[in-house]
This record gives sequence, C-alpha cells and structure tokens, in this order.
Amino acid sequence: MGLKFEVLKTSDGGGRRGVLSLPHGDVQTPVFMPVGTAATVKAVPQDVLETNGASGVGARIILANTYHLYLRPGHELVRRMGGVHKFMGWDRPMLTDSGGFQVFSLSKLRKISDEGVEFRSHLDGSKHFFSPEHSMDVQIALGADVAMVFDECVETPATWERTKQSMGLTHAWAARSKERFEAEKHRVPWFEERGGQTQNLFGIVQGGMYADLRKESAERLVEMEFPGYAIGGLAVGEPREVTREMIARTLEVLPKDKPVYVMGVGYPDEIEEYGKMGVDMMDCVLPTRAARHGLLFMREPGSSTVVRMNIKKKEYAEDQRPIDESCTCRVCARYTRAYLRHLYSSGEALSAVLNSIHNLAFYLDTMERVRGELAG
Amino acid sequence: MGLKFEVLKTSDGGGRRGVLSLPHGDVQTPVFMPVGTAATVKAVPQDVLETNGASGVGARIILANTYHLYLRPGHELVRRMGGVHKFMGWDRPMLTDSGGFQVFSLSKLRKISDEGVEFRSHLDGSKHFFSPEHSMDVQIALGADVAMVFDECVETPATWERTKQSMGLTHAWAARSKERFEAEKHRVPWFEERGGQTQNLFGIVQGGMYADLRKESAERLVEMEFPGYAIGGLAVGEPREVTREMIARTLEVLPKDKPVYVMGVGYPDEIEEYGKMGVDMMDCVLPTRAARHGLLFMREPGSSTVVRMNIKKKEYAEDQRPIDESCTCRVCARYTRAYLRHLYSSGEALSAVLNSIHNLAFYLDTMERVRGELAG
Ligand SMILES: [Zn+2]
Ligand SMILES: [Zn+2]
Repeated sequence: MGLKFEVLKTSDGGGRRGVLSLPHGDVQTPVFMPVGTAATVKAVPQDVLETNGASGVGARIILANTYHLYLRPGHELVRRMGGVHKFMGWDRPMLTDSGGFQVFSLSKLRKISDEGVEFRSHLDGSKHFFSPEHSMDVQIALGADVAMVFDECVETPATWERTKQSMGLTHAWAARSKERFEAEKHRVPWFEERGGQTQNLFGIVQGGMYADLRKESAERLVEMEFPGYAIGGLAVGEPREVTREMIARTLEVLPKDKPVYVMGVGYPDEIEEYGKMGVDMMDCVLPTRAARHGLLFMREPGSSTVVRMNIKKKEYAEDQRPIDESCTCRVCARYTRAYLRHLYSSGEALSAVLNSIHNLAFYLDTMERVRGELAG
Repeated sequence: MGLKFEVLKTSDGGGRRGVLSLPHGDVQTPVFMPVGTAATVKAVPQDVLETNGASGVGARIILANTYHLYLRPGHELVRRMGGVHKFMGWDRPMLTDSGGFQVFSLSKLRKISDEGVEFRSHLDGSKHFFSPEHSMDVQIALGADVAMVFDECVETPATWERTKQSMGLTHAWAARSKERFEAEKHRVPWFEERGGQTQNLFGIVQGGMYADLRKESAERLVEMEFPGYAIGGLAVGEPREVTREMIARTLEVLPKDKPVYVMGVGYPDEIEEYGKMGVDMMDCVLPTRAARHGLLFMREPGSSTVVRMNIKKKEYAEDQRPIDESCTCRVCARYTRAYLRHLYSSGEALSAVLNSIHNLAFYLDTMERVRGELAG
C-alpha cells in the first residue's frame, strides 16, 4: 500500500543493506534520520539538508514531532496546508513520532488513564488530551510517510512489575492506534494526489530493560502485523551494554522482512554499531543539539575514534584547520576552527547553522560508510 | 595600486554604471554592500551570499565593522589568521568602516579630544582609545580592500557652529589617517601574496545637514586626494529630502572619476534613487536587521511600490504564497508565508536565516535592476 522494504544483502553480524520505499521516495538503509522538531531541522535550510554529506545526496528522510506541531501551528492548519511535506517545503520521506514521548518528557501535570493522557502544554499551560485515537488523527493530518503508534513511556528505572504493567497499556494502545489508523488513513492530505497511497503505521516494542518483557512485547506487536517495528524506551540513561542487549533480544523476535527503527539513538559509534546489528532506521537530536552548544563531532586523526570537540575552548582561537580534516562537508571545506570559535563566542546565528551542518554531515557520512560496508 | 574605477556610462540624471576593481576582485556599480558586522552577515552562510539574488552572482562586496572585530576576536588575531578575508572564508572584496560610528553609537563613557576618543567596550566595560592612527593600524591588520578614515560623527541635530567645529576635527583626522595609512599600508596581511597591492583609503565628507559645510568638507577632502569618497553622517533621522539634498550638493563637488559611497543607507527605494543620482556604493544593516524582526521587503503586486510585510501577522498563518511572487530567491522559490510565519512565531533559528536571505536578495536584485537601467 504505502511501504516496500527490500533487503539487498545481510551480513554475518545481522546488519542489512536495504531500500525502504515510501510514498515520498526511496530511503537507503540503514539510515539516520535528522530530527526536525517543529517542521525544521533546527538552523538548517531544507536545500542544505538535501545535499549535505560527502555523497551530496543529503538526508533521505527526516523526522518531525507530533507533540510540537499539534501545539504550534496546529495539525489542522498543517492539514489545510497540504500536510507537513508541503508546509515545510520538503518532498522526501518523513516520519512523525506519536507525541507520546514529548507528552511524558516535556509537558506538565500529566494524568494517565487507560483512555489516554491529559497534560498541560509546555508553551502556555493550556490543557490537552492525547489518546491513541487522537494521536492517529493528528498524525494523519500531518501526513508523514511513517506514523507511530501511541505508547506509554515508562519512567526509568522501573521495576519489572511496573514495566510489565506499562507494556500492557502500550499493547492495548497499539491495537487501538492500528484500528483508528486503518479506519482513517484515507484522510491523509495527499491520498488522492498520490494515487490512493497511505501512510505506514509502525508498532513500538517496549519492555524497559527486561529481556523477557522485550521478547514478549515484540511477539505481541508482531501478532498485530505492522509494516515496520520500532524499539522504544531505550537510550534513557541505561549503560550502553544494556541498550545493545535489549536491541539484540528484540531483533531476534522481529520479522526479517520488515524495517526496524530504534528510537532516539545515538552517538556516532552507536548508530554504526546498531546499523551493523540489523537496525534499519535511527533518529536523534544529538547532532543538532550538540552543535548549538558548540560540540562538534570529529574523528581523531589517523584513527576511527569519534570525539566531541568543544569549539569554545581557547585552544581553537587561532586554529586554522577545519573541524575534521577528513570531513568533506561545506563547513570543513571553507571555515576554520578559529572562525567557528569566533562565531560561537560572539553569539552569532551563523554558529548554529554551520555547526549543525557539519554534525549532520558527520552522521550522514557515518551511515553512508556503514551502508557501503554492509553492501560488501 | 589597489583600486581602479571605470565609469562605463553616465545617465542624464547623473547615475553611472561602473566597475570598481579591488585587490580581491571586481565590483559592478552602483552596488549595495551587505553588512557583516562581526565578520558574518548575520545568519547567512558565505556560500549563500555568493549566489544570492536573481542573477546568481550574489554579493560582490561586503562590509565588516572595525569596532566589533577590534573588540572580538581582536585585530591582531585576525592579522595572524591572514586578514579578515581568510578569517571568514570570503575571497571577494570587503570594506571596513573606521570604527568611529560604533564608538559614538555603541560604546559607553566616551571622552573626545583632538587626539582621539576614549571609550568603554559595550561588551565588558573595558577601556579603549581610538585615534586616527589606531584606526588605521586596526584596519590594516583586518585587511579589507577598502578602509575608511577615522571621523567624528556629530550628534544630531547639531547647530551650524557645532557641525563646523566637528567637521574641522574630521578633516584633521582625515589627514592624520592618510598619513598613517601611507606609512603603514604595506603591512596589510596579503601585501606580498597579492603582488604588492594595498588597501584603498576613502575620505569621508561630513558637514551635517548644512549644504555649505558639505561643500566645504568635500572640497577639503578632494584636496587631500583619496581614491574614493564617502558621504557620512546621513540617514540619522533627518527627512529624506534633506538626505537627498546633502547627497546632491556633495556629488557636485566630488570628482567624476572616483567612486562615491553613501554610508548607512537605506530603504530599497532610497538605494535605487541614490544609485540613479550617481552614488556608487551603499551599505545598510536594514535588510538583515529587519529580517530578524520578521519584516520582509516585497513589491506590491503589479506595482513598483516597496512595502514591508510583517510576517508575524495572523493573516499570513495560512497564506501559501511566497513572500513576493516576483522574487526568484531560493526562499521565495520554496517556502510559503505560512511556514515563515510558523518559524518566526516558534522562535526557530531558521527564521532569521531564510528572512535574511530573502531581504538581501531583494536588495541585490534592486541594484541589479538599477545597473541594468543605467547601462540603458
Ligand atoms: Zn565537516
Ligand atoms: Zn525572495
């Protein structure tokens, strides 16, 4: 209907080189998805996103946040503008989260029931209610290529009992999300324009840091038959071995012919590692958020070790080298560390722009290399 | 030595189509120079500056502020980085002001003597002293293609007597600026690299809002023989007829074979008008400053009247048109008013980036058209 996922090659480690075909185009996997919270990848113009990175093909898919767009400018406005693609001038694939994570992490005075979550906006304190059904209605109005079921994000750490209970709610909400999505999916703004294609709703595996619950959650989700599966509730402060273990246990259960998306990861070495384990999609605010704080990713010269350079340090004040001498991005091709430090120190708007472009290029190039290695 | 100015054609109204050749390249005149205060045209990447506007040739010359770069990162640091061009990754012509205007408008606790100006930094309150000689040393370290004499900017309004007295100081400082510049100009960072070329020092005509003083000032400056002349102290709140009159009176005195630069103007219709009167160079922070406040220049459909659209207005919330339907800039080609309003309302960094690109394109296109008309 909307999605086709072709695995071109699977490596011994489980990593797979694939192509995910979505209503707005093809995505080479494994892929890193830059986060465009409020329908903008912060500080980066869309034409730069389309051409960033060594290969020049840029980001093939980006993410937008349902919670933010629901509050401002409002999903019905975005629908009237033809959906989030037209609204932001981006004609490549997009994914929206369910709003759940932000409701749990950003909003105030939450009240959770089986029905859904009541919360107050972090912008103006106004009262709102999100249910699985409402999340679907909002996401269909936004019209990203991939939508996510509405799930509960359990607090961390949580006991096995608390995690199991929360997981139960997540499964019930997944079923309700799917039911509403199937009933309403033809209302996506571009339904007719794209010949009756629809969005694709992904399920989300929860289960906290408990392998048995992860397995159970994955099995329940697979029974519900989604076109793709996400692994949620990770990278919330746990040791990286635990993240890796939870991903590995979940991948064992998920079908080999469906795309797998690990939400909210991670550092450059993490996205490389998980990509080689068989994860097809990842997203994280880290490259752009770090950029705004003057933290720039680079590889240590002559090594593959990734380090974060703090550009505000005095030692860069007269450093005429680019951020990373092995990086071919437009920032490294033109600007010195000395200049980037000056922009950051002076509070100049161009600082966030250039830093974000480099960090995103670094992430895109990392996955480009991983795809090359997986293609063998 | 450094500068060649060729007038290709002069119109009946006095406007001239010319080419100003500087150490870092040719500039088609009349020209509008975007202001890059702290070695960055706020929020706009250099590669966009180079290609912005309908013709795709972008800004041929930009300005940087001596006062800002002196305070941060410091002119000696910029010299060690090879000058402001290399520091900011900009290989086209540049101009620096003398620092005078900012010392008089931004700094605190000024103490003016015949020798120079003592002031406190607006950044940290530290004490500094600028004299004509010091301004030259700083500007030579920065190494822009065009440097400006250090002048006193008289408060406004000012009496004829006060203006005449200030003008006298300005003339004395112009002579001292020239003397120091001639003695030190070989110290520009790119002197050897560019085959012994040097910067070009422009004189500044003052005289407030008094035609007789403007005439006297221009005559005095012409006697000193500068390769180009600026008209300073205008657009400081006076009626536009007065600005126009002061420019016209000054142009009568200045030599026809030297470039004339009116500092700190103006609105799009102003730069068009002055360009057609015979002004060759202009600069103004207006396009970028207005952009950051959500004020976008456009022409009323079917007319040549320039208006400023306030993008934060509710009426644009669902407006799917570009800012200006006759504008071919990359912003108007891709983004709607609805999206630009959303970015502004949400405080997104991309708002300043896109708004600035459009407003600069609008200014560049205005002067491109004026040059076309003057070439007849
Ligand atoms: Zn780079
Ligand atoms: Zn435009």
